[in-house]
Amino acid sequence: MKVYLAGPEVFLSNAKEVLAQKAALARAAGFTPLAPGDLEIPPTNSKWERGLAISAIDEKLMLASDLIIANLTPFRGISADVGTVFELGFMCALGRPVYAYTNTARSFFERTSQDYYQGNIMERPGGGLSGSDGLSIEDFHMADNLMLDGGITSRGGAFIRKNVPEEALLTDLSGFVECLDLAAKRLMA
Amino acid sequence: MKVYLAGPEVFLSNAKEVLAQKAALARAAGFTPLAPGDLEIPPTNSKWERGLAISAIDEKLMLASDLIIANLTPFRGISADVGTVFELGFMCALGRPVYAYTNTARSFFERTSQDYYQGNIMERPGGGLSGSDGLSIEDFHMADNLMLDGGITSRGGAFIRKNVPEEALLTDLSGFVECLDLAAKRLMA
Repeated sequence: MKVYLAGPEVFLSNAKEVLAQKAALARAAGFTPLAPGDLEIPPTNSKWERGLAISAIDEKLMLASDLIIANLTPFRGISADVGTVFELGFMCALGRPVYAYTNTARSFFERTSQDYYQGNIMERPGGGLSGSDGLSIEDFHMADNLMLDGGITSRGGAFIRKNVPEEALLTDLSGFVECLDLAAKRLMA
Repeated sequence: MKVYLAGPEVFLSNAKEVLAQKAALARAAGFTPLAPGDLEIPPTNSKWERGLAISAIDEKLMLASDLIIANLTPFRGISADVGTVFELGFMCALGRPVYAYTNTARSFFERTSQDYYQGNIMERPGGGLSGSDGLSIEDFHMADNLMLDGGITSRGGAFIRKNVPEEALLTDLSGFVECLDLAAKRLMA
């Protein structure tokens, strides 16, 4: 079974090394790993075309994969990397098994209300909470936006949440390993 | 033809009003609009279950839609709302036509380097640029992460970028109207 390895690791300075670690762990669990960067990017004439070429390769790899494990750790903000989220939605629509992990146990509600609004939140007239700008705040005890948690849960997947040391936020792979174990038990029994 | 109206309008204090405006514009362009909130949420026993119920409804509405128009205006950060991005990926995988707009003409590169890193960026040894934390910065002249721009472009859709007054960032609908016009010309000719 081929597993697509989605996540913001591609932005790390040691991206190749971390992706190689993930690939080795996936192989050890019995999967064939596919990840962004596995195929050569054809020559292009502009930055724009290069971006399109990478997107096309990643979509091709997803179509060739039997499942996805997505690193949904918050990236440059309170939510997961949007490239990874696109890929999660993509695989959900294809009906492929989806697993995810995030290296923070703090809920989306906590990150929105504390990190983004610094606690400046209020009750809305019609119920619920909003930030100082009047925008409502999701409060569903979820790890990120409800479409992410919902898409994973409704397909029988898992969204692992755990705290790791701050310096390992984007590199700790224990949640990834848990996803591999769960997926292997379910799909290769 | 049914169009799914995706975007962070659902978080506005006047969400119902803005979604009604979008629905009216969609109808005027000849489409039948479907949007989050169109179906009643069944009673649930917890916040978590309520989140799952909303996710299930939104997925159902997407499956019933012939195309999507997504508001990808940056939301609580430098990228689009992750719920909307999930939906964009979902509809891309289903092969449905995808259109999007963002109410800023500034590129993802500008927002990452200026808004997120405040200009503290540097050249990487192997080429390209990174932020002060060593994470690489996408520089593909795109409106957001390359999976978003790539997914839209490769399906013949459009990703409209325009500047609007700051106070109308989440409510200006001129980009939405452009998407409706383009979709109507292509799909209802």
